[in-house]
Amino acid sequence: MSVARALIRNHLTSGEPRAGEEIALRVDQTLTQDATGTLVMQELESLGLDRARTEVSVQYVDHNLLQADEKNAEDHAFLRSACRRYGLWFSKPGNGVSHPTHMQRFGKPGRTLAGSDSHTCAAGSLGMLAIGVGGLEVAQAIAGEPLYLRMPEIWGVRLTGALPDWVSAKDVVLEMLRRHGVKGGLNRIIEYHGPGLAGLTAMDRHVIANMGAELGATTTVFPADDAVREFLRAEDREDEFSELLPDGGYDIEEEIDLSTLEPLIAKPSSPGNVVPVREVAGTDVSQVVIGSSANPGLRDFAIAAAMTRGRQTADSVSFDVNPSSREIFADLTKMGATFDLISSGARIHQAGCMGCIGMGQAPAVGHNSLRTFPRNFPGRSGTREDSVWLCSPETAAAAALTGVITDPRELGMAYPELPLPEHSSVNTDMLVPPLPPDQATHEELVKGPNISSLPDFPELPDEIEAPVLLKVGDNISTDEISPAGARALPFRSNVPKLAEFTFGQVDEDYPRRAREEERGHFVVGGDNYGQGSSREHAAITPRYLGLRAVLAKSFARIHWQNLANFGILALEFTDAADYDRIDADDVLRLRDLREQLSGGAELTVHNVTKDEDYRLCHRLSRRQRDAVLAGGRIPLLARR
Amino acid sequence: MSVARALIRNHLTSGEPRAGEEIALRVDQTLTQDATGTLVMQELESLGLDRARTEVSVQYVDHNLLQADEKNAEDHAFLRSACRRYGLWFSKPGNGVSHPTHMQRFGKPGRTLAGSDSHTCAAGSLGMLAIGVGGLEVAQAIAGEPLYLRMPEIWGVRLTGALPDWVSAKDVVLEMLRRHGVKGGLNRIIEYHGPGLAGLTAMDRHVIANMGAELGATTTVFPADDAVREFLRAEDREDEFSELLPDGGYDIEEEIDLSTLEPLIAKPSSPGNVVPVREVAGTDVSQVVIGSSANPGLRDFAIAAAMTRGRQTADSVSFDVNPSSREIFADLTKMGATFDLISSGARIHQAGCMGCIGMGQAPAVGHNSLRTFPRNFPGRSGTREDSVWLCSPETAAAAALTGVITDPRELGMAYPELPLPEHSSVNTDMLVPPLPPDQATHEELVKGPNISSLPDFPELPDEIEAPVLLKVGDNISTDEISPAGARALPFRSNVPKLAEFTFGQVDEDYPRRAREEERGHFVVGGDNYGQGSSREHAAITPRYLGLRAVLAKSFARIHWQNLANFGILALEFTDAADYDRIDADDVLRLRDLREQLSGGAELTVHNVTKDEDYRLCHRLSRRQRDAVLAGGRIPLLARR
Repeated sequence: MSVARALIRNHLTSGEPRAGEEIALRVDQTLTQDATGTLVMQELESLGLDRARTEVSVQYVDHNLLQADEKNAEDHAFLRSACRRYGLWFSKPGNGVSHPTHMQRFGKPGRTLAGSDSHTCAAGSLGMLAIGVGGLEVAQAIAGEPLYLRMPEIWGVRLTGALPDWVSAKDVVLEMLRRHGVKGGLNRIIEYHGPGLAGLTAMDRHVIANMGAELGATTTVFPADDAVREFLRAEDREDEFSELLPDGGYDIEEEIDLSTLEPLIAKPSSPGNVVPVREVAGTDVSQVVIGSSANPGLRDFAIAAAMTRGRQTADSVSFDVNPSSREIFADLTKMGATFDLISSGARIHQAGCMGCIGMGQAPAVGHNSLRTFPRNFPGRSGTREDSVWLCSPETAAAAALTGVITDPRELGMAYPELPLPEHSSVNTDMLVPPLPPDQATHEELVKGPNISSLPDFPELPDEIEAPVLLKVGDNISTDEISPAGARALPFRSNVPKLAEFTFGQVDEDYPRRAREEERGHFVVGGDNYGQGSSREHAAITPRYLGLRAVLAKSFARIHWQNLANFGILALEFTDAADYDRIDADDVLRLRDLREQLSGGAELTVHNVTKDEDYRLCHRLSRRQRDAVLAGGRIPLLARR
Repeated sequence: MSVARALIRNHLTSGEPRAGEEIALRVDQTLTQDATGTLVMQELESLGLDRARTEVSVQYVDHNLLQADEKNAEDHAFLRSACRRYGLWFSKPGNGVSHPTHMQRFGKPGRTLAGSDSHTCAAGSLGMLAIGVGGLEVAQAIAGEPLYLRMPEIWGVRLTGALPDWVSAKDVVLEMLRRHGVKGGLNRIIEYHGPGLAGLTAMDRHVIANMGAELGATTTVFPADDAVREFLRAEDREDEFSELLPDGGYDIEEEIDLSTLEPLIAKPSSPGNVVPVREVAGTDVSQVVIGSSANPGLRDFAIAAAMTRGRQTADSVSFDVNPSSREIFADLTKMGATFDLISSGARIHQAGCMGCIGMGQAPAVGHNSLRTFPRNFPGRSGTREDSVWLCSPETAAAAALTGVITDPRELGMAYPELPLPEHSSVNTDMLVPPLPPDQATHEELVKGPNISSLPDFPELPDEIEAPVLLKVGDNISTDEISPAGARALPFRSNVPKLAEFTFGQVDEDYPRRAREEERGHFVVGGDNYGQGSSREHAAITPRYLGLRAVLAKSFARIHWQNLANFGILALEFTDAADYDRIDADDVLRLRDLREQLSGGAELTVHNVTKDEDYRLCHRLSRRQRDAVLAGGRIPLLARR
């Protein structure tokens, strides 16, 4: 049996694990970050939770670290108080990015992890089943409810050979994106196996598992083998190791010979635009950033430090380094790499997500920025017309030195030896443990002026006649629906205010039109609608503005679930050609909604403007159908 | 002769150095930072400069480092291009705060320095005459023009004794503020001398000289003695040392016995609210920040690291550390202090001003923040209702450990021995030297979409009849007139947009009323109007909105000069009691302005609403009068 299937079997609480069937899984651990976590804490409050029922639940503060005004600091105080109240761990600002920090301190082979962050899948590197979901799913998991999902197919990727010099884990996942694009993993779990694994450390696997999110996969899984044992030993947690090895059982099979790979790079503005670095060599670069959960390991920074040691980065380049966790920053400092980076001209930032989520480091318009990050969706950097490329630390550091995109093999440098410490600078003091239950129940939530309550959403009406306010193309990301960045993110606990940013990257006028349209409205999308970040705000803010249904060719998994959770119908065209028949401003009519939804997977939408009908499919389970009709899962629970 | 007088005599190009007379001084060096420097570069363009005529002119990038969108990165690119064009040094983002960096690399005993930053006076620590002025004054200095100022009185402060354990340089300048308040230094140069100097390093003196700005002093001067020689030796620049020692000649004399001092702290929200730390001990603290040009030295960080070594900062405290320069960050890292700080829970930020200028680190409303910064004016932190305290690194680190304001003498800790390196990690690679002249003339200025041109300002009319749109109290700072912070600062190169933030901290409606009032308007102020930052925006944006004259009890020096440079009349009440007779919305009339201004120091303002007259005094030199009447110095030069 494959590792993924074993993990599912061991946590199954209902359903049959056949591809496409809804299954429910017991959740051992949860992870929230601050950008999505404030809503999760508000949801715990709405659910009336007394205390977390998971083995481990951790609230990280890694996204909103800039504190341009009081809002972020107030959210940090609110999250700290919610952790004290509900029995969660609190990882203080500066302790690091959730994914590497969770892996270092809490990750455990054989366990399940639900996280309100799309890169939660990174923990698959330890032989966990780690799934990024919307915040409400995590709130329910914290409350002891199982996690529901459609059973994915298991996609076995057999690795053979060993990576050549100058090629590293990032290039492996870029190769997957080069082959399959950003939809290649939809409704699949990617499971890596084979002899090539021997050359990949647990942190290398984190890089590959992390960006499984960019392939659209439900998650990525690696076996729990000797590399995992070694990782846990370095973290003082060898006793938490248990072996979990695969034995076939894949629905789909693929192979990558690591020895054939070369340095790759994703061009602007999609992680799927992958080409060999040599094809774009010589392009001017103004900024290079090393960091984020996509290249969080000590070796990812150490290789950049080794390459720049005793050299100076180009005069025209801003060389930004975000250590990914306090522990890694401490190790880098101890081994001399921080000194080397500072000396070579690096701007060292506090440990956290920083530019990866558009919190600082925005490049100038038209200037190329090379980043070791997972995503380069348009505008995610904070700059509207940005030009962001994704690559390995080796390729990034090469560009920092030369000022142009450079295949690191062409530097004429020997590939650095990296003597990494066998034991990490383990330090748990910035992880505040849960309060004892008797103390926790007396804690008050600290709500600053920017922490609002969740809006009330009414039931879905039985008939909707409303215009299409927006028609968008393929692969619209949640960054484009509800932007991150330093302008919008501080309002993440304030839905009415955040709603003003909805679809701002696509159509700045959308919020005004939506507010003025009393009948509600539709949005029409292409393939893979809602890819990327797990943020619920991408469902809540358009809902707040009157969105009733999205008609699309296909949906990304997490956003599809978030739509259902917040009472928006997600409908897929039965005939994709119907997408072309609908124009913006067409008025659509949905009739007898309750009857249509209980009658099967398909329903009919009438185009009043063009007087024609389309067949669409909803894919909702009964559980989800009830939630949508009630106006969302929270009103449903409240009414019960 | 005192050091200050010797420096003035050696640079005098016109005038008599008698207190109150206008004198002109040759400028050897200039310093600009990015928040004020973009205007300076636009002014160089307006002036048609070919190449800088100073010995050394350096453009630093230390304020706007967060890059929440493309604007800051565009400004950095613009500044870099202007340095290449005009023959200036360019200090890259991440190289550090201008004042300590300038001191380390360029500061030279006996020289004059004009800087478009109010803390330029910090270089007085090396026996320089270093004066913070408005940007246009710096632009003219770069163009080879002398610097005009009213000859100040020389205030000799004799230091005796030695500082006790747990008391450091910051407490010396806080003691000056405790004794004299934020206006104590108006129209004065503070010159420290006496046997107590022997125990103060050049960097300690930087701390004291820096916050001379908070006393309102024209500048602060120290002798160039062995401590300065030692500093320059550690920076590989001993050959640039020349001795400059005082021999009496003070207009005012004062003494501080260092051995009697104790830890002091400035309460919110003025640097003048100084009390002993023990009086406020036990107050809750949520944030502690170490950094800025007010405590920039290696020892200021090293003492905090030594105090927190092997300990953990309080769970409720965010402990933020901003290294002040790349060199100091490198030294801290080499000596192990960075590791200690990270391990104790510090959030380490890139080298720069950061929270000191409201670029991040904003605290939550109502939460106390202890900072080693120079200023705590209301809202400067980025939080409107902030509660910021100023103190030494010792007092700050003590609060980080305990979570409450703590007199460091009460920690029960031995005062740490600080073995500092004798030689600094000198590294000039992030300081890009000027291009050779033949290459520079071919350089193009790189202007991104947010870089506007300076607005055109018309002549001052001969009669003004207009309302008082705003009446404010004493000590209104330029932070309150034109805020810094992450929201406003990115627009510093875009006057129309920045104008929307004018007086936002005092009266959010002011910009709207000002725009709607076609007759122009007056502002009435109390004592020390325009204290604090040197930013010209505090003159330009109200002028853009129609401000014609400010009537105040007294003005802070730099702002007074900026008002004249941008065509706003600064008038002082002859009888301070007249301040109380004028109310907001009164209509005032100024008649025969040209005749009145040439008739002497006083003129009459008629209050139309109350039908009464007031006598006011303008203090403008002929040179300045011409500029004001022309609508400012730039239109004057343009018309010539």
